[in-house]
Amino acid sequence: LKFSGIGESSVAEKINDLLNLKNPTVAPYANLGEVKLRITARAKNEVEAKNIIKPVKEKLKKKFPKFIFGEDNDTLPSVLIKELAKRNETIVFAESCTGGLLSSSITSISGSSQVFQGSIVSYSNELKNSLLNISEDNLKKYGAVSEEVCEAMAINVKNRLGADWAIGVSGIAGPNGGSQEKPVGLVYISIAGPNNHITNIKKIYNSTRNRIEIQTLSVNVCLNSLRLILLSNSK
Amino acid sequence: LKFSGIGESSVAEKINDLLNLKNPTVAPYANLGEVKLRITARAKNEVEAKNIIKPVKEKLKKKFPKFIFGEDNDTLPSVLIKELAKRNETIVFAESCTGGLLSSSITSISGSSQVFQGSIVSYSNELKNSLLNISEDNLKKYGAVSEEVCEAMAINVKNRLGADWAIGVSGIAGPNGGSQEKPVGLVYISIAGPNNHITNIKKIYNSTRNRIEIQTLSVNVCLNSLRLILLSNSK
Repeated sequence: LKFSGIGESSVAEKINDLLNLKNPTVAPYANLGEVKLRITARAKNEVEAKNIIKPVKEKLKKKFPKFIFGEDNDTLPSVLIKELAKRNETIVFAESCTGGLLSSSITSISGSSQVFQGSIVSYSNELKNSLLNISEDNLKKYGAVSEEVCEAMAINVKNRLGADWAIGVSGIAGPNGGSQEKPVGLVYISIAGPNNHITNIKKIYNSTRNRIEIQTLSVNVCLNSLRLILLSNSK
Repeated sequence: LKFSGIGESSVAEKINDLLNLKNPTVAPYANLGEVKLRITARAKNEVEAKNIIKPVKEKLKKKFPKFIFGEDNDTLPSVLIKELAKRNETIVFAESCTGGLLSSSITSISGSSQVFQGSIVSYSNELKNSLLNISEDNLKKYGAVSEEVCEAMAINVKNRLGADWAIGVSGIAGPNGGSQEKPVGLVYISIAGPNNHITNIKKIYNSTRNRIEIQTLSVNVCLNSLRLILLSNSK
């Protein structure tokens, strides 16, 4: 079972009883921004093994209805694409600090063209202005890394590209470019949906995180946040 | 030493004599789209080791003046960013089949904002039309995966975003979407430079290549091709 939005220790804390089982065994694994629980059964054949695993899996799914996003070969992008396709909805991105990583996480999956239309990677402020219509005044007043600009990135890319959903992401991936007020690791994420519904998220990643980790974790939060919004707005 | 644009067996063939050396030893390693030669010396100290390595390294650099793009921690994106920064030139991308991977390969490197302004990931034909000004007529006539459309993507993104260099890339990453005329693995790459200098590249990757490999190899060709163009247009 795959988890997002929760740390390995928080998962482990809540399932102490299951971690002590003998058959099946339950073992946690952690990757950057993702926790997995592997359930292993000892049995005479696959059917029997699945029967031993089933009640534990059900129990876990009930315990973590929001954090578990899938199982086996599911990934956050694959789960999100499947859900958007089911809803017949489309998505676009306006990326700054993630620099294309959010788009490529989606387009790495076959079938993404069914829901993904494209994105604007507006790395420079000039492009935030010319392609995403963020006014120079607002870029000066709030800065490119701000809730105000990030929200406008999401709303404007959604309207301009004509999609059902849009994600804007702007932050400081480092190692340079940070300040006391806006440190390396500060990331804003905005999700714009149908009926101008906006969700704003602010993350401050630990200063021990490097550039690639900050970009990867930000992409995970983008994908998982939209997954949760879709979950609570089921069609 | 790191190579791009040449396969492991072609490198090995040309340096049979060096592969039999005892001190230093020369050993080839191959990754997707990249070949490395590791030169290892046995010596009393680092200075002596470097002295043993030096003539072999020089010999290899003379033998492969174009294929060797760097050493140690150099990567294609890092080398390209360094070269563009030295020339005080900027770059933008119009990505279709690579879906943001080209942009993220550049923005994974700290300091990329010095040369990278942004990009348009035009995954759908609608966005190729609305954001990159590719006419519906040409999309119909040639198809999105064609030299004509790819060249227009590069030229138009360069002009629209106002950069010195632009790369357009359009292809069929698969596993679906291929046809007899345009099979999975067909990729067009166009590089537009100062004075409307255009370079067009056509690649047909082997049908055993999966989606991620086709995207990754395409990105490598984009980066390495621009590196070679800059090499032959040194400022």
